[in-house]
Amino acid sequence: MATEVTPKVALAGFRRILGADAVLTDRDAIAPCLTDHRKLYEGTALAVLRPGSVDEVSQLLAFCNGTRIGVVPQGGNTGYCGGATPDGSGRQVVLSLARLARLRSIDATNHSMIAEAGCILANLQREAEAVDRYFPLSLGSEGSCQVGGNLSTNAGGLNVLRYGMARDLALGLEVVLADGRVLSSLGGLRKDNTGYDLKSLFIGAEGTLGVITAACLKLFPRPRAVATAFVAVRSVAAAVDLLNLLREASGDRLSSFELIPHVAIELTTRHIPGVAQPLAGEYPWCVLCELGSARAADPLDSMLENALRDAMDGGLLDDAALAQNERQRAAFWRLRESIPEAQRHEGASLKHDIALPIASLARFVDEASAWIASNLPEAMLVAYGHVGDGNLHFNVNARAGTDPLRLVARADEVQRVVHDLVASLGGSISAEHGIGRLKVPELERYAPPAKLDLMRAIKHALDPNGIMNPGKVLRSA
Amino acid sequence: MATEVTPKVALAGFRRILGADAVLTDRDAIAPCLTDHRKLYEGTALAVLRPGSVDEVSQLLAFCNGTRIGVVPQGGNTGYCGGATPDGSGRQVVLSLARLARLRSIDATNHSMIAEAGCILANLQREAEAVDRYFPLSLGSEGSCQVGGNLSTNAGGLNVLRYGMARDLALGLEVVLADGRVLSSLGGLRKDNTGYDLKSLFIGAEGTLGVITAACLKLFPRPRAVATAFVAVRSVAAAVDLLNLLREASGDRLSSFELIPHVAIELTTRHIPGVAQPLAGEYPWCVLCELGSARAADPLDSMLENALRDAMDGGLLDDAALAQNERQRAAFWRLRESIPEAQRHEGASLKHDIALPIASLARFVDEASAWIASNLPEAMLVAYGHVGDGNLHFNVNARAGTDPLRLVARADEVQRVVHDLVASLGGSISAEHGIGRLKVPELERYAPPAKLDLMRAIKHALDPNGIMNPGKVLRSA
Repeated sequence: MATEVTPKVALAGFRRILGADAVLTDRDAIAPCLTDHRKLYEGTALAVLRPGSVDEVSQLLAFCNGTRIGVVPQGGNTGYCGGATPDGSGRQVVLSLARLARLRSIDATNHSMIAEAGCILANLQREAEAVDRYFPLSLGSEGSCQVGGNLSTNAGGLNVLRYGMARDLALGLEVVLADGRVLSSLGGLRKDNTGYDLKSLFIGAEGTLGVITAACLKLFPRPRAVATAFVAVRSVAAAVDLLNLLREASGDRLSSFELIPHVAIELTTRHIPGVAQPLAGEYPWCVLCELGSARAADPLDSMLENALRDAMDGGLLDDAALAQNERQRAAFWRLRESIPEAQRHEGASLKHDIALPIASLARFVDEASAWIASNLPEAMLVAYGHVGDGNLHFNVNARAGTDPLRLVARADEVQRVVHDLVASLGGSISAEHGIGRLKVPELERYAPPAKLDLMRAIKHALDPNGIMNPGKVLRSA
Repeated sequence: MATEVTPKVALAGFRRILGADAVLTDRDAIAPCLTDHRKLYEGTALAVLRPGSVDEVSQLLAFCNGTRIGVVPQGGNTGYCGGATPDGSGRQVVLSLARLARLRSIDATNHSMIAEAGCILANLQREAEAVDRYFPLSLGSEGSCQVGGNLSTNAGGLNVLRYGMARDLALGLEVVLADGRVLSSLGGLRKDNTGYDLKSLFIGAEGTLGVITAACLKLFPRPRAVATAFVAVRSVAAAVDLLNLLREASGDRLSSFELIPHVAIELTTRHIPGVAQPLAGEYPWCVLCELGSARAADPLDSMLENALRDAMDGGLLDDAALAQNERQRAAFWRLRESIPEAQRHEGASLKHDIALPIASLARFVDEASAWIASNLPEAMLVAYGHVGDGNLHFNVNARAGTDPLRLVARADEVQRVVHDLVASLGGSISAEHGIGRLKVPELERYAPPAKLDLMRAIKHALDPNGIMNPGKVLRSA
């Protein structure tokens, strides 16, 4: 039975569990935790809590469950959908996982490591490399995002084509449930058919079903050979054909395949120091593609060169530059990775993170571009991204010199058109970024009613008092 | 509100939905559906129902949900845990998916195909090959098992090391829920973060949460190069070291790694026509290993030969035979695949399907073997299997000339020792075969209480009337 308590009693309870130093209430100290990365939301919180152990997380949840205090788990606070930001009710706490940042163990033989939720992603990549292994999860925010957040949002990133999403990289989890009980499965087993796949349920649940406190993560042999090219393709359809050609020709060794429109090259070369045009000419669409292998002797450069030559003969591409050394490779990747930053320099940007069946990508780009050209002459389309997975970051930006507020005022209209088109082509309105708070109405609009019913039933079964990240993914009951 | 009805009324309801021809009640016709593959169980059923469409499945479930008739989904009836066999209550029906056997579509560009649940696995493999693609799910029963059953049990098989389990091969499902509603997500998307991962919940749920009627399955480039070897290793520990050496040396192109004890070679060469010893000498442990690549020009044979030479220099193995042609390769695989059959010739066999962290395999084999040698002199151990995944089929067989019933009488004792040892080493008591009815008590014994509570809560949320395969995975409420 849950009994509401006053803020004063709540804070006393938190201090009793964590010690006063780990219960932050000072306005300036907690301010960064009360807004999201994109500055879409600003909330309030009874406190920001910083537990230092799984047992403390367990006690905190049991306490909040008994007092109906909402718990908002927060990692690096780098998400795009406001999923880690408290609301304005004043009856929520931010639960920071930052202090649970220990790499508990790493086992090169078993190709696995056990990391606590607060571990920063880039650090985990380095730890794997130190034992001659590879942890392939890689995103723009890896210098500050935490693996608990990556798992909670089922992060994607640059290596999904070859290695899968965060869910595919977790062998097991340690989760604290809403009532404080700890469910732990960190054994690193590759095969385990003993009951329902609860692991996959918590991953991607964005903190609404329980708090991930640690995970057993999958490691791979280290890539020892790489070949990278920047390629000018004839069209989005040609890019898809090139994708499949490269998969076949390389023995499925394609590890990245990123679509880059001309406007993105223009923006990055203009705004980001050190970024230069990779090709002599200017082309409407380019692709950054990379082969990787754990075997140093694999002739990836010649494989890539031969495949691209075949592709050129086949009319798929007009020009290609192969990276001759690591410096050139890094330059190609810098261009790609700086596209988000370059857009920020230009001003307002209406963002969409969509996925489509790969065969429908070209049609989507054509139809959506045509609509924007006819209806939003003051805007320009910057569509780029992980085309190998059917995922496009589909951003509509205010042209320089136009009033950004005019575009922003039409955000809902644009989103409706884009999402309706995506839905009509059987795609997803959130490929990587999740639902958070931002896309709750969109999920309600596009998800089949039966799916929402099942989700609500599961949510209610696991969190009957509705304390786990209320208002995220699903509307509060 | 659910109202029980008489068998007569139930049958009339089924006939109204399916037509009389698809409602089987004749004793001889339905007998094969009332027992399991291993002849552990025999049940009764109001009827065996054979729907011909998803809509008919939907109507049937709605009817059974309203009348509290238990529904036992059945595919090829090849499972090992009695999960597709009705109980003796007479208040259940067998729901055969055999007539939903259409390959709805295959998309080589998107590397996916949409198959109905009743499609036979070997047929799907052929369909993929016909469009120059590869569907890697492969098990001994593939000539008769159906993909719906494979997904319901999250089947493993011979290619898990490289391609994952059934759950990793499904991009989306079409499922009929207990109340008859249809939840469909067959778009073939690689990325979709719109809500909870319900797909992964239904896969491996063994028909207790809903009926899988179709799936969008992942295809891969076809393997065009293969290199296979039969190797004598010094010990189980040496086998694990060889596994990692081969992963690194081949650029992670190892696709199979099967442990084969001397006794298995002895049994198969004795009982199975055409199976011969692959190596000149006799060794306690052998490994059948295979490299595969989608690139024909990859020099897998020399890669494998060099790696094995290094391994021999390093003291990991004593002898190796590389398959020089497809005939030799097929002979190696025939030996491996006939191990279950060879054991049947010998008589009683106590079977265990366990998984361990790979680094603990050697220790498990040592300790379990020692216990059997001391406590069961009339038995012999036949431990073999997918060691690359940490999965051992750990079978204790009655020696020829002993009374098999004496061994069978000690089955529970042996299982207790084996499973306690597995649990103490952080392993799984069911790596591939699932829980079904057979392992319900074992799951209750070894699963953390919080896990069982969550499973029951989810089961109750999705199937409040308890009609979905009652008594399987979880005890009936």
